[in-house]
Amino acid sequence: MNNFRAVNPQTGEEFGPEIANATKGEVSAIIEAAHAPEQTPALRASLLRNIAVALEAARPEIVPIAQQESGLPEARINGELTRTVFQVNLFAAQVATGRHLDPKIDLADANYPMGARPDIRKENQPLGTVAVFAASNFPLAFSTAGGDSISALAAGCAVVLKAHPSHPQTSRLVFAAIQSGIKASGQPKEIFSMVEGNDPQITHWVANHPKITAIGFTGSGGVGKLLMDLAAKREVPIPVFAEMGSINPVFVTSSAISQRNEALVKGAVDSALLGSGQFCTKPGLFVIPKSHADLFLSEMEKYLATISVGPLLNQGIAERYSAAITTLAKLSSVKVISGNTSGTGIVVKPTFFIADWSVISAHPQALEEHFGPTTVIAIAEESQYEVIASSLEGQLTATIHGSDGDPVAPLLAVLAEKAGRVIWNAFPTGVSVTAAMQHGGQWPSSSSHTTSVGTDAIYRFMRPVSYQGMPDELLPDSLKDSNPLGLERLVNGVRTKQ
Amino acid sequence: MNNFRAVNPQTGEEFGPEIANATKGEVSAIIEAAHAPEQTPALRASLLRNIAVALEAARPEIVPIAQQESGLPEARINGELTRTVFQVNLFAAQVATGRHLDPKIDLADANYPMGARPDIRKENQPLGTVAVFAASNFPLAFSTAGGDSISALAAGCAVVLKAHPSHPQTSRLVFAAIQSGIKASGQPKEIFSMVEGNDPQITHWVANHPKITAIGFTGSGGVGKLLMDLAAKREVPIPVFAEMGSINPVFVTSSAISQRNEALVKGAVDSALLGSGQFCTKPGLFVIPKSHADLFLSEMEKYLATISVGPLLNQGIAERYSAAITTLAKLSSVKVISGNTSGTGIVVKPTFFIADWSVISAHPQALEEHFGPTTVIAIAEESQYEVIASSLEGQLTATIHGSDGDPVAPLLAVLAEKAGRVIWNAFPTGVSVTAAMQHGGQWPSSSSHTTSVGTDAIYRFMRPVSYQGMPDELLPDSLKDSNPLGLERLVNGVRTKQ
Repeated sequence: MNNFRAVNPQTGEEFGPEIANATKGEVSAIIEAAHAPEQTPALRASLLRNIAVALEAARPEIVPIAQQESGLPEARINGELTRTVFQVNLFAAQVATGRHLDPKIDLADANYPMGARPDIRKENQPLGTVAVFAASNFPLAFSTAGGDSISALAAGCAVVLKAHPSHPQTSRLVFAAIQSGIKASGQPKEIFSMVEGNDPQITHWVANHPKITAIGFTGSGGVGKLLMDLAAKREVPIPVFAEMGSINPVFVTSSAISQRNEALVKGAVDSALLGSGQFCTKPGLFVIPKSHADLFLSEMEKYLATISVGPLLNQGIAERYSAAITTLAKLSSVKVISGNTSGTGIVVKPTFFIADWSVISAHPQALEEHFGPTTVIAIAEESQYEVIASSLEGQLTATIHGSDGDPVAPLLAVLAEKAGRVIWNAFPTGVSVTAAMQHGGQWPSSSSHTTSVGTDAIYRFMRPVSYQGMPDELLPDSLKDSNPLGLERLVNGVRTKQ
Repeated sequence: MNNFRAVNPQTGEEFGPEIANATKGEVSAIIEAAHAPEQTPALRASLLRNIAVALEAARPEIVPIAQQESGLPEARINGELTRTVFQVNLFAAQVATGRHLDPKIDLADANYPMGARPDIRKENQPLGTVAVFAASNFPLAFSTAGGDSISALAAGCAVVLKAHPSHPQTSRLVFAAIQSGIKASGQPKEIFSMVEGNDPQITHWVANHPKITAIGFTGSGGVGKLLMDLAAKREVPIPVFAEMGSINPVFVTSSAISQRNEALVKGAVDSALLGSGQFCTKPGLFVIPKSHADLFLSEMEKYLATISVGPLLNQGIAERYSAAITTLAKLSSVKVISGNTSGTGIVVKPTFFIADWSVISAHPQALEEHFGPTTVIAIAEESQYEVIASSLEGQLTATIHGSDGDPVAPLLAVLAEKAGRVIWNAFPTGVSVTAAMQHGGQWPSSSSHTTSVGTDAIYRFMRPVSYQGMPDELLPDSLKDSNPLGLERLVNGVRTKQ
C-alpha cells in the first residue's frame, strides 16, 4: 500500500507528514514486543494518572491538530479531551481500589454439605495483549487513549492500538503523551504500542496474531463482523468486544408534544445533528403519534431552518451518506425536509425523512444506521408503539419522551430487552462515563453484553483464576491471608476487609 | 430417526421405555412455549428451593435408575445427587441475596467533572430462554438439573434442556422433580422444558431457534465447536458457554516424591481412574522428574495392580477409548502399564502410557483428552517444567505437587495463564461448588472465560441494562430510591444498603 496523509475535512486537502502503512513484519514485531509487567493495582493506577497528566499537558498541541483532522469545532475537541482525561483518571481511581480484582475466598471446610471443601480463592487477572481498533468519530474519547485502550490498560493488559487513519497526527500526539506517562511511571514502553496504516490487511494481521488475546473495537457493523469472523476462525479463538452502532429509537408520546413541543423538537434535532450526526448514539428513528404529528413536524421544519451543520469527518462517510439519502429519498410516500450547512469542505445537507410507520417498516434501509446529519421520523398510532419496538433490532439505546402518568411501562419493558440503555425524557447522545453506564446493547449494536463505556468496561479484559490449597506465599497479593492490598473481599460469602 | 432406549453399561443391554426423537416441529413448539415470568429474587429463590426439595424427595426413584443407566456405583450416584441438591440450594441462597442483580446507582450530578451527569442506574437482567445441553458423565450434577440449568434458572431465565440420551429415564425423573418444584411454587411449567432424542439434528434445531438467547454446554470439543459455529452463524449470534474438557496437567517435583511417594501415587491413580476416568477434570498428563521417575513408576505399577475399574458410561465412549489407546500404544519408546477391570458390560482395561517428554510432545494425540481409564506420564528434567507448561494448550485445571521451598513460583505463573484453576498438592477431580470456584479455563478447554461451576455461573445468563433519568415508578425494584428489596448497592461508588 502507498503512504497516506491526513485530510482536512474543512478544505478536503491533504496535510501533514506522510504516514507509512505498517508491513506484516512490522505488525508482527510490534505485537511480539508488547509486554505488560505484573504489578500492583497502585502501580497500574499511578501509570494511568501519569498518562492523564501527560494528555492534559499535551492539550495545546492536540486540540488544533485534532480540529484540523476532524473538522470538529474547538469547543467540542476541548470537551472531548476533557472527557478523555477524566476517563483515564476515573479508571485510575477504580484500579486503585482493587475492586476490579474481585477477590473471593472460600476457606477450607471439612463439613461443607456437599463434601469437604478445600481452600479456594479467586481473583481476576489481565488477559494479556489486547488489540484495540480506534474509531474515527471521536478522535480522542474513542480513539488512541479512548475507552477501549484505557480499560484494557486498567485491567493490567498490554495494548496494541491500531490508529485510525482519519486522524493520524492526533493519534501520534496522543500516543506520545501515553508514552510520556509510561516513562514518568518508570514502566516499559511496550505496555502500549501503535500500528499505523489504512491498508485493510493490517486488521487481519493484528486480529490473527497468536499473541493477541482479545479485541476492542468501535466502528461499523461490517468491520465489527469481519473481526468477529477472524477471531472465531483463529486456532485459539478470542473474544471480540465490538460496538457497532444502532439507530437508537426515540418514542414520543402525545402528552410530551402537548406539554413541551418546542423544547422537545429542539432537543431531538440537536441530538440527531450533534457532531454532524456521526455519534453511535445518534437518534436515527423518532416514532411520533399521528394525533400530534403535524405539531411536531411543523416545529421541526421551522427549527431545522435556523441551524446549520458542519463538515463530515472524511470522504468515505460523505460518500456513504450521499448513497443512503439518495436511496431513502426514493421511497414512496416519504416527505423530506432539509437543513443548512456551515463551513466548507466535506459538507452535506442535513436531510430528515418522514413517513408513516407502514412505509418505514417496509424498507429495511430506513431502519439502518446512517452516519451523517439524517434521521427518520415515523408516524404511528401510540397504541402501535409496543409492536413497533418489538420489531426493531438490538440497540445501544432506546428512549421514551413522555409525561407523568403516560402508560409506558409495557413499552419500557420491550425497550429494556432491545437496548443496553433506556432513557426517559432526554436524548441518547452524550454517554456519561460512570459505574452505572451501559454502552453496548443487543446484537447488532454490539457483539457482546458487555459495556465499552464506564468502569465496568475493565472486566472485558480480565479472566478469573482460582487457586486451590495454595500456600500463602504462592498466592497473588489480593488473595493472601494478610490482605496486604487492604481490599474488600468476599470471604465465605461475606464482604470484609479482614 | 428411530426411537431408542437406555442401555445398561453393566450388561450392554437395552432396557426401559422407548424414547422418541423430538421432531423439528416439536422442538420448535417447545421453544416457542418457553417462558419465564419476571419476578422478585425472593420468588425465584423459592422456586429453586422447591426444586431442591422435589429432587431430594425423588431420591429413591432417581438413584437406582441413574445407577442402571450409568453403571456408576450407588455411593457415587447418591453423592452426586447430594451435590446436585446442594447446588440448587446454594443458587437459591445466592439469588435470595439479590447480589446477582449487581445494582449500581450514579445520581445526577450537575458538577460532574466531564460534564453534567444524568441519573443512571444499572442492574443485571435475565437473557431470556437459554438452551442447555446435558452431559453424559455426570447424569445428575451436569445434566438435567445440573449447573448450567440451575444457574440459568437462578438468573431468571427459562431453560430448554436437551436431555442426554445416555440416561433418558434419569432425565425424565429429574425433569418430573423440577416440574413438581415449579408446580409447588405456583409458577408456569414453561419455565423449564425438555427435548429428548439422539438425533444430531436436534442440536441444530435448538441452537438455531431465534428465541434461544444463550447456550450452556458440557461435553466434547467437537460438539462444543459445532455449537459455537452454529451460534456465530445465526442471524442474531448468541453466546455459547461450552465446557469442553482438558488434560489437566499435574507437575510433580522430586521433593514431593521423596516426601510422600506412596500417598502421591495413590492420589494420582485414584484421581485418574475416578468415575472410570470420565471426569472433565481427570489428570490426563503427569509430568514427573527424571531423577525420581523409577520410584514413582514402580509404586504406580504396584498400586495399579491392586485396584480395578468399573464399566464406561456408554458404547460410544468405549469405542473412542479403544481407538485412542491403540494409537498411543503404537508410539515409539512408550511403556504401557495396565490395570484390572471390575463388573461386566462396557468394561475396558485401565492403560497408562509412560515416556520421555520428548516422545510425548512429538505426538499431539498424547496431549489430547481421552475419556476412560487412561493417563499419560511424561518424564522430564524439573528444569524443563516451565517450558513444558508453556507449550500446553488451555486447561480447566493445572496442578503442582511439591513441598515447601520448591522454587515453583515461575511454573505457577505459567500455569495460571493456562488454566482456570491451579491446584497445590491435591488432585483436580472433585470440583467444589463455591463462590470462588472457577471451572472453565482457556481455549480449547472452554469457549469463554466464565465458570460453569459455582455461583458466578449465574452471570453467564444475565446482561446489564442501564436506566437513565427514569421516574422511580418505572425503575426495576432493585434500582428504586426506596430500595424495596433491601439490596446492597453501589451508590456513587460506595457500597450501601441506603
